[in-house]
Amino acid sequence: MGDFKIGRRSLLAGSGAILSVMASGVRVQAQESVTALPDYVSWKDADALIVHSNSTIEMERSAFGTSAFTPEDRLYVRNNVAPPPASILDDRDAWEVSIDGVAEPRSLTLAELKTMGITTVAMVLQCSGNGRAYFEHEPSGTPWQVGAAGCVMWTGVPLRVVVDALGGVAEGMEYVTGTGGETLPEGLDPLTLLVERSVPLDALDDILLAWELNGEPISLAHGGPLRMVVPGFTGVNSVKYVTKVAMTAEQSPALIQQTRYRLQPVGEEGGPDHPSVWQMSVKSWITGPLDATQAGRVQVTGVAFGGTTNVASVEVSADDGQTWSTAEFIGPDLGKFAWRPFVAQMDLQPGMYRLVSRATDADGNQQPEQTEPNDPGYNHNGWRAPGIEIEVA
Amino acid sequence: MGDFKIGRRSLLAGSGAILSVMASGVRVQAQESVTALPDYVSWKDADALIVHSNSTIEMERSAFGTSAFTPEDRLYVRNNVAPPPASILDDRDAWEVSIDGVAEPRSLTLAELKTMGITTVAMVLQCSGNGRAYFEHEPSGTPWQVGAAGCVMWTGVPLRVVVDALGGVAEGMEYVTGTGGETLPEGLDPLTLLVERSVPLDALDDILLAWELNGEPISLAHGGPLRMVVPGFTGVNSVKYVTKVAMTAEQSPALIQQTRYRLQPVGEEGGPDHPSVWQMSVKSWITGPLDATQAGRVQVTGVAFGGTTNVASVEVSADDGQTWSTAEFIGPDLGKFAWRPFVAQMDLQPGMYRLVSRATDADGNQQPEQTEPNDPGYNHNGWRAPGIEIEVA
Repeated sequence: MGDFKIGRRSLLAGSGAILSVMASGVRVQAQESVTALPDYVSWKDADALIVHSNSTIEMERSAFGTSAFTPEDRLYVRNNVAPPPASILDDRDAWEVSIDGVAEPRSLTLAELKTMGITTVAMVLQCSGNGRAYFEHEPSGTPWQVGAAGCVMWTGVPLRVVVDALGGVAEGMEYVTGTGGETLPEGLDPLTLLVERSVPLDALDDILLAWELNGEPISLAHGGPLRMVVPGFTGVNSVKYVTKVAMTAEQSPALIQQTRYRLQPVGEEGGPDHPSVWQMSVKSWITGPLDATQAGRVQVTGVAFGGTTNVASVEVSADDGQTWSTAEFIGPDLGKFAWRPFVAQMDLQPGMYRLVSRATDADGNQQPEQTEPNDPGYNHNGWRAPGIEIEVA
Repeated sequence: MGDFKIGRRSLLAGSGAILSVMASGVRVQAQESVTALPDYVSWKDADALIVHSNSTIEMERSAFGTSAFTPEDRLYVRNNVAPPPASILDDRDAWEVSIDGVAEPRSLTLAELKTMGITTVAMVLQCSGNGRAYFEHEPSGTPWQVGAAGCVMWTGVPLRVVVDALGGVAEGMEYVTGTGGETLPEGLDPLTLLVERSVPLDALDDILLAWELNGEPISLAHGGPLRMVVPGFTGVNSVKYVTKVAMTAEQSPALIQQTRYRLQPVGEEGGPDHPSVWQMSVKSWITGPLDATQAGRVQVTGVAFGGTTNVASVEVSADDGQTWSTAEFIGPDLGKFAWRPFVAQMDLQPGMYRLVSRATDADGNQQPEQTEPNDPGYNHNGWRAPGIEIEVA
């Protein structure tokens, strides 16, 4: 009871989901006008979302707010494979995950996990392809702008606690490999579509086996009843409906690991020799104002994060990067994996302006002006392209 | 567009909203079985809520989670007067609030406020009567248990910034008085029902004029388009649909200030000589487990807050307060006005247990065993009564 969400705003689902922000000077791919939310996310806030397809739904740039985290009903959706049936949420505590590559491998139910340890981590969840629309080589795939990202809180048991309870990591293991519980079509090599991702074993101390998202049991759309959450890594690495977590010597043989989510040069096919899409880098973007604004004092807001370390500072420019002003962070600091909303008070006379932001993390890494292109259009973090053109009247 | 929330879980609204937790040894008033959410909050999560009446809706004790904040669709509702028509949200930026008791009084639109300054505060929002069910003298009024409270994030402009922009506080003022925009019935002295509350001027530096709750424009149920938010004070002091904010020499003449929300002795009528219900005190309660549990390691969770200062520590007892164990806080610290989820790992053999928690704030104030009674049943923070009886099998 209470596990499956129904119908929020379904009456409004046909309205409003258009591309409201056109980044000037960069490609914004024309979208088929898909505005209705699919059933499994019909409880989401249609007015705050851009429906690219049933499995790719982006948050409007106007919907970020300044409250440090993203409500679940506005959080972007990206599923590589259709979610399993909602019936997997009927008895959440009975969900089983097998733990392998440890001294004493075994299966654990979610009920058992809930007795082992508990922690909460605030984290930027960002699709690997967020910002793809800003690459000039026009990668195929969803042309996400800034909205395939949110900052959310996960509660679960630290994977380290589980691994230690099972005798520790087995000899020779170098990766943490999570296997998703999606139902795969028959008659196809399972490795073609299997959602199984490997991340370096170094990430073990940050990983959660999570059952709660923003204070509520995780919805089907976001991987409930149990998700392997890898803070600091792009969304694909946080495996939904996780059925197996293994410490492994090699990376998963699934194509999603071997050839997809690789950073190959433009024009090449991805393969195991190209870097995998793992850790996120320092990034920021403006969230307001997005429309014509009155002259005088203008509060320019946005969000900034460091990826795997704290964001240290962020600057804002109203002249496309010729001059910069330091912004201030707003509200509580939710930790190094979270983003921070920021504001810059600017005095703007009538005219056209191009607003951009540039963040620097605690290790001194700064957003580049442009992102080195990769064929599939992952990991965009350049500061120029996501700029916003506004008229001050 | 996007301002009025429609229909989340409305299909489920008839199910599940029962009193699922019976605190043993204390009065729990029998409830009329009101389970359907009223229209203006039909988008809320009915399964997580107890509908006492159309204007008094409590969160289930099982719905707190451990994610540091409370999603808006689970947040309790308490309206002293029915909300204004939803049309007040049609043009949020046009909402006007008059600022008085400053050197240069004037009206400001919400659009203007949004240019003046911006901050985000995480805060426990708690009804003055939360815990009323635990008073032994059986006060009249809604018998809230623990769920007339949530921890939420507000974004708005600091009132201090607004006041300073208007020349500062006028001479001789001692209170900040906020006036709500509810529509009052005709033919009645307006002071009978006017929602107008005064708090000491000392609170000025903490107060926000807020337009955003948990990252979204404030809903009608919670005071949108603009609410005067007073961190550290009980909910009634945070005036919804605020139309006027005045620095005043005296407290409001409205009955809600003069005779109601006073801490008079049991059996007396409230009046201006009795203390007003203002600042909250240190408090905590257990949120899990609430049901029969397996023997062995049990994770006892809860929330704790200090009211106007940080919570420093919290202890848990499985024997109704004879022996105590220190709990650990979970997740990010959202600041002194927020609560912190906590966990205590306990090893429990089969038997019956009575779980209680006891918090201490940064000034050394500790929850008392019992709360000194007051006639209307406000400000309950005793540790004994909200205890939970569980069977370990």
